Amino acid sequence: MATRTAPIRVIHYGLGPIGLGIARILAQRPGYEIVSAVDLDPEKAGKDLGTLLGGSPWGVPVSEDEKQALAQEADVVVHATRSHLPEVLPQLTTIVARGLNVISTCEELSYPWWRYPEESRRLDHLAREHGVTVVGAGVNPGFAMDVLPILLTAPCKEVRAIRVERVVDVSLRREPLQRKVGLGLSSKEFHQGVQEGRIGHVGLEESVAMIAAALGWNLQRIDHSIEPVLEDGRVKGLHQVARGVRDGSVAILLDLTMVAGTAGQRDAVWIEGDPPLRVEVDGGIPGDIATCAIVANAIPAVLDAPPGLLAPFQIFPVWKQRGM
Amino acid sequence: MATRTAPIRVIHYGLGPIGLGIARILAQRPGYEIVSAVDLDPEKAGKDLGTLLGGSPWGVPVSEDEKQALAQEADVVVHATRSHLPEVLPQLTTIVARGLNVISTCEELSYPWWRYPEESRRLDHLAREHGVTVVGAGVNPGFAMDVLPILLTAPCKEVRAIRVERVVDVSLRREPLQRKVGLGLSSKEFHQGVQEGRIGHVGLEESVAMIAAALGWNLQRIDHSIEPVLEDGRVKGLHQVARGVRDGSVAILLDLTMVAGTAGQRDAVWIEGDPPLRVEVDGGIPGDIATCAIVANAIPAVLDAPPGLLAPFQIFPVWKQRGM
Repeated sequence: MATRTAPIRVIHYGLGPIGLGIARILAQRPGYEIVSAVDLDPEKAGKDLGTLLGGSPWGVPVSEDEKQALAQEADVVVHATRSHLPEVLPQLTTIVARGLNVISTCEELSYPWWRYPEESRRLDHLAREHGVTVVGAGVNPGFAMDVLPILLTAPCKEVRAIRVERVVDVSLRREPLQRKVGLGLSSKEFHQGVQEGRIGHVGLEESVAMIAAALGWNLQRIDHSIEPVLEDGRVKGLHQVARGVRDGSVAILLDLTMVAGTAGQRDAVWIEGDPPLRVEVDGGIPGDIATCAIVANAIPAVLDAPPGLLAPFQIFPVWKQRGM
Repeated sequence: MATRTAPIRVIHYGLGPIGLGIARILAQRPGYEIVSAVDLDPEKAGKDLGTLLGGSPWGVPVSEDEKQALAQEADVVVHATRSHLPEVLPQLTTIVARGLNVISTCEELSYPWWRYPEESRRLDHLAREHGVTVVGAGVNPGFAMDVLPILLTAPCKEVRAIRVERVVDVSLRREPLQRKVGLGLSSKEFHQGVQEGRIGHVGLEESVAMIAAALGWNLQRIDHSIEPVLEDGRVKGLHQVARGVRDGSVAILLDLTMVAGTAGQRDAVWIEGDPPLRVEVDGGIPGDIATCAIVANAIPAVLDAPPGLLAPFQIFPVWKQRGM
């Protein structure tokens, strides 16, 4: 098993809480060099990345200009800007056309083939043309409710259905996520936010589609519901369920609760199969830190992966030799 | 994600309980064709593989002659004969020299670099020379106490130590395994069996070494102990512990109990890191069926893998499109 000697050169695209969290991890690991950074927020532009992280300057100024930041020689772009694919597609296209690998926290990129087959085909084609890898990554989607259950089917000779329950305490999470949950809204405002796509966890259908793809299952449809969890008439969280229907019955059931102030954080996976398996992560997989870690840990695998648009479970294997 | 159209042609080498169990799974899956079978047991030679599995004949006679069986055109050899690498190395060498990929349940093959660095180097070289992949696979070693904890480190930005506990009820397991545990022996006979290498789970040090390799850790040494679990002066099971020592302290602790008649079967993994994780498989991962399933499920990944001698976690990712 070969180890890399030259440092891995990273460009950071997007410096919100997640982007900064990934930069903080990479800065502490041997073998990584952050060569440039871009964020469209004028509050951040011109500042040094090290200073933004609350430390001493690194000599890496944050640029507002995508073209300038991407002009640097680099091995991979860590992209952490928005959740929906159409919002980030121009950014991803620019990165790929520049000949750079990209790992992105864009939730819909985790399994874009389901919702955006045509855009996925084009992005895959462009990535192959430029010999680079494009992959979405994160804790959810990307691990807790899709990659983990996929990996847990390994000891099963037959799988009939998969059920995953995740309960997250959003009071422990970053502010943008609390907003996505609709904390403090009325029920009416919540439902309006869901309608407009401002409220709700993004990526649950992508997780269902990813599991189906990994197991070679054809789904007839994915049903999806988002309901508020109310306390004294105000939203304290949400309950979101996606069901993948195969041969007329629910083969994949993903059940996500995100509330402020639960004591019952957990991740539980049931594989209905032969043998059946029930796996629980006691206290759950913490969200934001896990997303940052997963992205940082996956970078060597992205560099080793074949060109094209890949799903997270396809790069998972080579998470090794990452200098821990 | 491309799907294969031609069937995967399989040669079975070794038809004990595990070899037969794998054949039974593959026979029920679309996309596989069992083209020949070899077992050195004269009781089995000449019989039809389908008949050996308790069904109607398949037209696949079991051969005693390795050369004859391996002369068939095939994509992969499923090898399930012995536990120790030196016992199977001549068989593996013949298979590889014949230009065939091989996935083997040989426990010491799961991570042979630790105990047999020179043999591993030669086998890797031979495999690359012939453009084939060689990999060990199974539930333990190969999943429960190594690959699973490796995969569970994905959400951690830092890992300080890993602890795994596995409790198995051997009364539910195949007879060769019960013999390896020393069921019914006196304490003295048990210790003598351990000395002679007849008693004890094979592969615990390999699991420690595999975890260390996956995380890029250098171990100073691996300590290993095997003690009997006694009832009325007779062995009812064993308790086996392996400790990987890094920078002077135990960084990997694998604790395995195999007893007849426990109600507490389980697999538990602790990742001491940031964040810490505790994962439990309720009731444990059943042994024999899981080994058969893991080998069957891994075959497409073996065919997609690069040539050489690989560790199980390196082929894990591509476990997809396996026709479930």
